[in-house]
Amino acid sequence: MDWKTEISAAQARVAGHTQVTPVMESTGLGLDYPVELKLEQLQHTGSFKARGAFNTLLSQDVPTAGVVAASGGNHGAAAAFAARSLGFPAKIFVPEMAGPSKIALIRRIGADLSVVPGEYANALSQAQAHEGATGAMQIHAYDAPATVAGQGTCFAEWQGQGLQADTVLVGVGGGGLIAGALAWFGGARKVVAVEPETSCALNAALRAGSPVDVSVSGIAANALGARRIGSICFDLAQGMTSVLVTDEAIAQAQARLWQAHRILVEPAGATALAALTSGVYQPEPGERVAVLVCGGNIAPDPLEV
Amino acid sequence: MDWKTEISAAQARVAGHTQVTPVMESTGLGLDYPVELKLEQLQHTGSFKARGAFNTLLSQDVPTAGVVAASGGNHGAAAAFAARSLGFPAKIFVPEMAGPSKIALIRRIGADLSVVPGEYANALSQAQAHEGATGAMQIHAYDAPATVAGQGTCFAEWQGQGLQADTVLVGVGGGGLIAGALAWFGGARKVVAVEPETSCALNAALRAGSPVDVSVSGIAANALGARRIGSICFDLAQGMTSVLVTDEAIAQAQARLWQAHRILVEPAGATALAALTSGVYQPEPGERVAVLVCGGNIAPDPLEV
Repeated sequence: MDWKTEISAAQARVAGHTQVTPVMESTGLGLDYPVELKLEQLQHTGSFKARGAFNTLLSQDVPTAGVVAASGGNHGAAAAFAARSLGFPAKIFVPEMAGPSKIALIRRIGADLSVVPGEYANALSQAQAHEGATGAMQIHAYDAPATVAGQGTCFAEWQGQGLQADTVLVGVGGGGLIAGALAWFGGARKVVAVEPETSCALNAALRAGSPVDVSVSGIAANALGARRIGSICFDLAQGMTSVLVTDEAIAQAQARLWQAHRILVEPAGATALAALTSGVYQPEPGERVAVLVCGGNIAPDPLEV
Repeated sequence: MDWKTEISAAQARVAGHTQVTPVMESTGLGLDYPVELKLEQLQHTGSFKARGAFNTLLSQDVPTAGVVAASGGNHGAAAAFAARSLGFPAKIFVPEMAGPSKIALIRRIGADLSVVPGEYANALSQAQAHEGATGAMQIHAYDAPATVAGQGTCFAEWQGQGLQADTVLVGVGGGGLIAGALAWFGGARKVVAVEPETSCALNAALRAGSPVDVSVSGIAANALGARRIGSICFDLAQGMTSVLVTDEAIAQAQARLWQAHRILVEPAGATALAALTSGVYQPEPGERVAVLVCGGNIAPDPLEV
């Protein structure tokens, strides 16, 4: 697939539907070097997922039954938002682990929502059953070309905003976002995959030589807890640098973003930064680094009463 | 005073000490028109106040007794941060109304802090007494040329980042920030002052024809609750547009920023936006508007346990 062409086409498609999210160079994070940040948690519905959802709906014919998505929360909110914006009905399945904050977000958007016991995989199988029964279009959370191309617009946009970094760190769940990064940069910049030790589908797949099932838990699990890495991501990820961080390191990075910059994110949104603040990834002298801040749907919601 | 020259000099002075804060054009705030935002709450210590503090310390000889500041919280944190960065001792006086979240922030920075019963004016008189007794240098929160020029760098920076707006809305407490806006733009763009109905020193002064004392209360009082507008601001503000918003409108704007963009701010930080979301300020057809998001030190601290 000619990913650069796909992502450029996606960028034209989603323009005006997604936010151009701001970028900054932070010198306040307590590191010896500056870090470029892209604040993608300011995207509509609080994560990059809106990009893939809009690209999917705008690049394909949507049936009258509308769309269906399974999600740990963020993708469901994005799919619901994109569907509402474009006038399609949406049916969203989330696992209980999505938590009350993300569930409330999806309800606020107005989607038809089912909360499924257990983990993400259970929500996915119900979404697939709904797709089969109704003919609704599935918006896959990470392992479909239109999703990956949509997420790739985040990095195309960043490059247009003057990204300087040699190395871009990205948190990984099912792999849609980092597949977009790898697809867009195509080796022109180093991409580093950062996963929680407790939810590391990509790292496990790279070690095993093929996608394998992993168990998922920990503080970022509702966003990053994919049981198996997407195949598109796995193919693009060959030979890449993959690092793991502890839940404690994620929580510390989350606190650092808040205390230094009043950037409040969910644990998944701080996972990539955690590789730097914990020292798990140490840039070489002169290596310029960037971190994609990917999600802000924290629980509990600080303004919910 | 040649404010443009002063502000340009300040911008050169504070470069590398303050953050260049990011900007974005928001289409997600539920308004019929886009709004340019500058996310100045991402500044070191969570508000624009770091600009004035650094400019003050970098443009004057600092005595060995160090610096002293009185503050509702944000200015004190900024003064403490700037002093620590530059190696000066700092003594900070805050009123009780600063609240535990801002008090903890100042303590974390490491300043010598005194919490004074009552409102801001009481902290200011203690700071003045300390200045007299020790020879420490007072960093005024809003009514000194170096402070105003420092805050003005926020708007010089924004212009350099491609600000398009015809009209820039700014929240007002003692008037340092909006004085910086008026000083920088010098009539080239319309500046709108937005104050809480319950803390409206500028609006009252403009009505009375001179600075007058007002009572201060409401949800933004610890940041915007100046009893009397600064004289520099008052002089620059002649003939400007001044609007008032309710506490309810401020809280709604605060919720809007969070729900739409995961931008979490204190009430003062949402006050300028509240003029738009409440309809108190309605742009003319074609009038492009911008909002300075000025402070993020919310209480209670969502990550404090």
